[in-house]
Amino acid sequence: MTDVGVQMYSWLKDLFPLCRSLTGDGNRETLAYLNDILGGRLTIHEVPTGTKAFDWTVPKEWRIREAWIKDGTGRKVVDFADHNLHVVGYSTPVDTVLDLEELQKHLYSLPEQPDAIPYVTSYYRERWGFCMTENRRQSLAAGKYHVFIDSELFDGSLTYADLVIPGETDEEIFFSTYICHPSMANNELSGPVVTTALAKWLLRQTGGGGQSGQRYTYRLIFIPETIGSLVYLSRNLAAMQAKTVAGFVVTCVGDDRAYSLLRSRSGNTVADKAALSILRSEHPDFIEYSFLERGSDERQYGAPGIDLPVVSVMRSKYGIYPEYHTSLDALSLVTPGGLAGALEVYKKIVRALERNHRYQATCLGEPQLGKRGLYPTLSQKGTADEVKTMMNLIAYCDGRHDLMDIADKIHVPVGELYEITDKLVKAGLLVPT
Amino acid sequence: MTDVGVQMYSWLKDLFPLCRSLTGDGNRETLAYLNDILGGRLTIHEVPTGTKAFDWTVPKEWRIREAWIKDGTGRKVVDFADHNLHVVGYSTPVDTVLDLEELQKHLYSLPEQPDAIPYVTSYYRERWGFCMTENRRQSLAAGKYHVFIDSELFDGSLTYADLVIPGETDEEIFFSTYICHPSMANNELSGPVVTTALAKWLLRQTGGGGQSGQRYTYRLIFIPETIGSLVYLSRNLAAMQAKTVAGFVVTCVGDDRAYSLLRSRSGNTVADKAALSILRSEHPDFIEYSFLERGSDERQYGAPGIDLPVVSVMRSKYGIYPEYHTSLDALSLVTPGGLAGALEVYKKIVRALERNHRYQATCLGEPQLGKRGLYPTLSQKGTADEVKTMMNLIAYCDGRHDLMDIADKIHVPVGELYEITDKLVKAGLLVPT
Amino acid sequence: MTDVGVQMYSWLKDLFPLCRSLTGDGNRETLAYLNDILGGRLTIHEVPTGTKAFDWTVPKEWRIREAWIKDGTGRKVVDFADHNLHVVGYSTPVDTVLDLEELQKHLYSLPEQPDAIPYVTSYYRERWGFCMTENRRQSLAAGKYHVFIDSELFDGSLTYADLVIPGETDEEIFFSTYICHPSMANNELSGPVVTTALAKWLLRQTGGGGQSGQRYTYRLIFIPETIGSLVYLSRNLAAMQAKTVAGFVVTCVGDDRAYSLLRSRSGNTVADKAALSILRSEHPDFIEYSFLERGSDERQYGAPGIDLPVVSVMRSKYGIYPEYHTSLDALSLVTPGGLAGALEVYKKIVRALERNHRYQATCLGEPQLGKRGLYPTLSQKGTADEVKTMMNLIAYCDGRHDLMDIADKIHVPVGELYEITDKLVKAGLLVPT
Repeated sequence: MTDVGVQMYSWLKDLFPLCRSLTGDGNRETLAYLNDILGGRLTIHEVPTGTKAFDWTVPKEWRIREAWIKDGTGRKVVDFADHNLHVVGYSTPVDTVLDLEELQKHLYSLPEQPDAIPYVTSYYRERWGFCMTENRRQSLAAGKYHVFIDSELFDGSLTYADLVIPGETDEEIFFSTYICHPSMANNELSGPVVTTALAKWLLRQTGGGGQSGQRYTYRLIFIPETIGSLVYLSRNLAAMQAKTVAGFVVTCVGDDRAYSLLRSRSGNTVADKAALSILRSEHPDFIEYSFLERGSDERQYGAPGIDLPVVSVMRSKYGIYPEYHTSLDALSLVTPGGLAGALEVYKKIVRALERNHRYQATCLGEPQLGKRGLYPTLSQKGTADEVKTMMNLIAYCDGRHDLMDIADKIHVPVGELYEITDKLVKAGLLVPT
Repeated sequence: MTDVGVQMYSWLKDLFPLCRSLTGDGNRETLAYLNDILGGRLTIHEVPTGTKAFDWTVPKEWRIREAWIKDGTGRKVVDFADHNLHVVGYSTPVDTVLDLEELQKHLYSLPEQPDAIPYVTSYYRERWGFCMTENRRQSLAAGKYHVFIDSELFDGSLTYADLVIPGETDEEIFFSTYICHPSMANNELSGPVVTTALAKWLLRQTGGGGQSGQRYTYRLIFIPETIGSLVYLSRNLAAMQAKTVAGFVVTCVGDDRAYSLLRSRSGNTVADKAALSILRSEHPDFIEYSFLERGSDERQYGAPGIDLPVVSVMRSKYGIYPEYHTSLDALSLVTPGGLAGALEVYKKIVRALERNHRYQATCLGEPQLGKRGLYPTLSQKGTADEVKTMMNLIAYCDGRHDLMDIADKIHVPVGELYEITDKLVKAGLLVPT
Repeated sequence: MTDVGVQMYSWLKDLFPLCRSLTGDGNRETLAYLNDILGGRLTIHEVPTGTKAFDWTVPKEWRIREAWIKDGTGRKVVDFADHNLHVVGYSTPVDTVLDLEELQKHLYSLPEQPDAIPYVTSYYRERWGFCMTENRRQSLAAGKYHVFIDSELFDGSLTYADLVIPGETDEEIFFSTYICHPSMANNELSGPVVTTALAKWLLRQTGGGGQSGQRYTYRLIFIPETIGSLVYLSRNLAAMQAKTVAGFVVTCVGDDRAYSLLRSRSGNTVADKAALSILRSEHPDFIEYSFLERGSDERQYGAPGIDLPVVSVMRSKYGIYPEYHTSLDALSLVTPGGLAGALEVYKKIVRALERNHRYQATCLGEPQLGKRGLYPTLSQKGTADEVKTMMNLIAYCDGRHDLMDIADKIHVPVGELYEITDKLVKAGLLVPT
């Protein structure tokens, strides 16, 4: 688990400098890198500028090569080459000289976080601007400045990728992550790298030799936020509505501070249930947010008429942690352990969904465990607990409660029920219904 | 709002001295006064003594002209002309001289409130009596007293009034207030004056020029308590059961101290929902009482077999405040602001009911507000809040939640949703279902 | 009530010395004694060794005559004749001399309760052993010991008894108690004696002269724990599933310390409702246990596929009180008052079930109590309370709420409603639905 954490962290480091946005070559390079990891299993899609997606339209593609501000002495006071947050996302080209006073109208900084470069974009209104720390901004002397942005907005395309891993049934578990944030770590390179590691693990589960296949089909998508999910939904809605059992927005999954759950709109979908099943028993101090505090693609997945059963399991939620949407959301904010912990939670959610059957006890009254050798040979204390769990499990195997329900009822982590269930099925004491 | 408060207070002052009871000319004068205010729109009904109303019978009419006790020196120690609470309601006539000891059996006072004249009635058992302050009673010297009550109980009639204001549909909102209390202010002249002001406002809503009509028909009744509601129900039950959407007993709506809600028997009627919708957001410190603490005409409206969806929204509830049913429930206890506040709550409840539709979002996924000019042009802070409310409103416009449900879900006063809903309907983003 | 407590206590004292177990003559003597009390109304059943009961088999019968350990000097250090807990239940015969070291493998004591003889059995694995206090055990000197157990395990039978008291309908109330514990008082002689007293009372209710019959049929069974309930269910399951309205495991009903309720698996059966109805109002400090803390025959009655509506109302629950399953659960632990209190609770539960009808108010609106003489003639305070209870009762007699529901709604003990209900039925104001 630490190994996979280190591996994810190294991917994240490689991808960190790329300039991702709603569109552009930074996104293509990011997806190409992840596709290498996944052995070319991703399907990359290009959606032309102007394509309709419900109420929205795919915007022009943005390309940026260079951007800086020079002071009167020719010294660069800010340079896109140093940090891609220095330029407002989707800035139009500019090459002019102006007074500091005029320049100020195009500058963005955070007086309350004087060391942080803010993350600012202007996707749907054309403008140009620079972001810098408040400290740097305060140090600017009166006088003339030369501003230069070599960018273009042109009819190009929006890029996204998806991967469908077939299972025994058409029913789907859905994962969505976004690839439109430039150099920030928790929000949002952690999402794509954890989703990629999860995809690798899912491929191993189904593709390998001895292991049994997965029951569910898995759909994983890598999209720019909002317009990307709208585009994806506009192309796949009917199929997704017909097939999706549970879905998850994988975002902000890299730091060490917290686990968080953003509930679905109704709050009672299978996705809510599976996420709660794992978080309540494994990370009982997790923070719960209602759908009112949504902020990412679940806004689309949960919209009326779309109504997909989607939640988001995170570590520190976007909008909540102080480094959010600034240059302080740096590589140092995420850790191999933070990434690995989130991956493990998602793997446990997958297992909880895969293993979530209803069973019927075959025996009237309690079975006699002793004559079947079902009394475990562990220590006295552990034995008593396992027997108690076993008897409680059987007591609720009435064909109405599924394993997640039972785990919740009898106050044990659902993962502790798998081996016991297998034993009892093998002994003929339980049958799936 | 202060104006209407001052106006209601002036009506209350005019009506205060009249001697109301279950029956009698005081009631007729009260209804005549209110009918003047309402432009003659009230229908006045007279129901003869002896008329059956379910398990009850309309009692004899009571008329009283004069009543006093004189001491041995001929000095009046108590006089109905000073305060109509001095005589037990429905006292039979008497003209006799007796010892203090014998007189005591006919006197009522409150040792714990020595300055208060209690309010006592004896509708269903014939007797006579006088009420006075404990202080006055203690000052009575031994000796002979002349008691005199010039009253009669005779076959007459019970008087009540109603007003039906037709709306676009036959479905009705019902308001009931009572007119049987003599000179007390919060309980119970506040009820009739607030109901009258509400009726005026409702008539303006429907009768005026530019304004659109009301969706609901409004039924407002002015009755003596208990026997009056039983009589009214016995004559109108089938229609009321078929049509009533929500009903309200308007009582104790004049003081400044509290808002209160007495829930319906089931606790989950539309009336409960509408009252909670307004009180929770506008007066979150309101006091909630269960149906077990009922005490007015909701006892009849909520009885099994009647089952009307009726609650009571009050200020300080009868039975709870110390001045209740004494001469301390004087004009000084109610205020223009107290009356106006209660009226405003009822108007908001009416609006909440009138505006309570279900809507369906027409757009799949979130709409792009910017291109429709739906980003408000207020301050930065207010803007964010309004946009958030707008997006949350749209998110719950799934055809299942009505506006009151949504306001409750997204934690905003329902009144804040009307203008936004109108904008979104106009923009084609919502349609009523 | 104290009388019946004293009587139950005397039965318990008589039965205390008998050596009960899963099977054997101690059980037969116990049932014979109780059958005498019940005038021979019990049916005694013998079920041969080897009989199948679902997943279980009736074990061999156990007979024990003598058992002791002598030290090197010939002195008995422990003797079954002193206390029948000294021998492990179902011990095989032995007659041998061995070293203390070897003997230790067959000794059981409780270091944390050095004065207590533990209760140990080995029904399903053949072995022999002795139980003693930790103090005694520590005093054993090194050397040779002669151990002697004159017992046999043989093909015999398991003994149980049942009693069905017919009522007006086939619907049944079920009571189950167990008779397999040797000399321990709260767990478990209290159960059989309280059940016997309850049976006597039920027989009186139905068999007597002037009193009306019971509505329900009562089934009471006296069985060895676990194997006994499995045997009973295997012979009577279909009938019990068809007829049982509510059932109760009567155990640990003799001490003074607490009342306890162990809920059914679903937690919402009629048995839960009736037990809660009495305990909440009569013993509001009762301790509530979920089905997860089950430990007696409700394990079988509540198993999936059996699904009988069974709870257990106890005083101090097995497994919880310190004297449990030791010689400290002595005669001194139970009291006449403790037994009588438990009996009274069960009688109140029976009454609550017998009297639990739904009623419909016949009068629209509130009835006029005065003209029917239904205003009670008690003290002023009591009167007001009784009238309030009466009016609240009528208000909920809507044909949907039964008396237990109403008692819960209006916060009065259900027992307070019977007389009032009778009065109102007699007055024609309520009719059963």
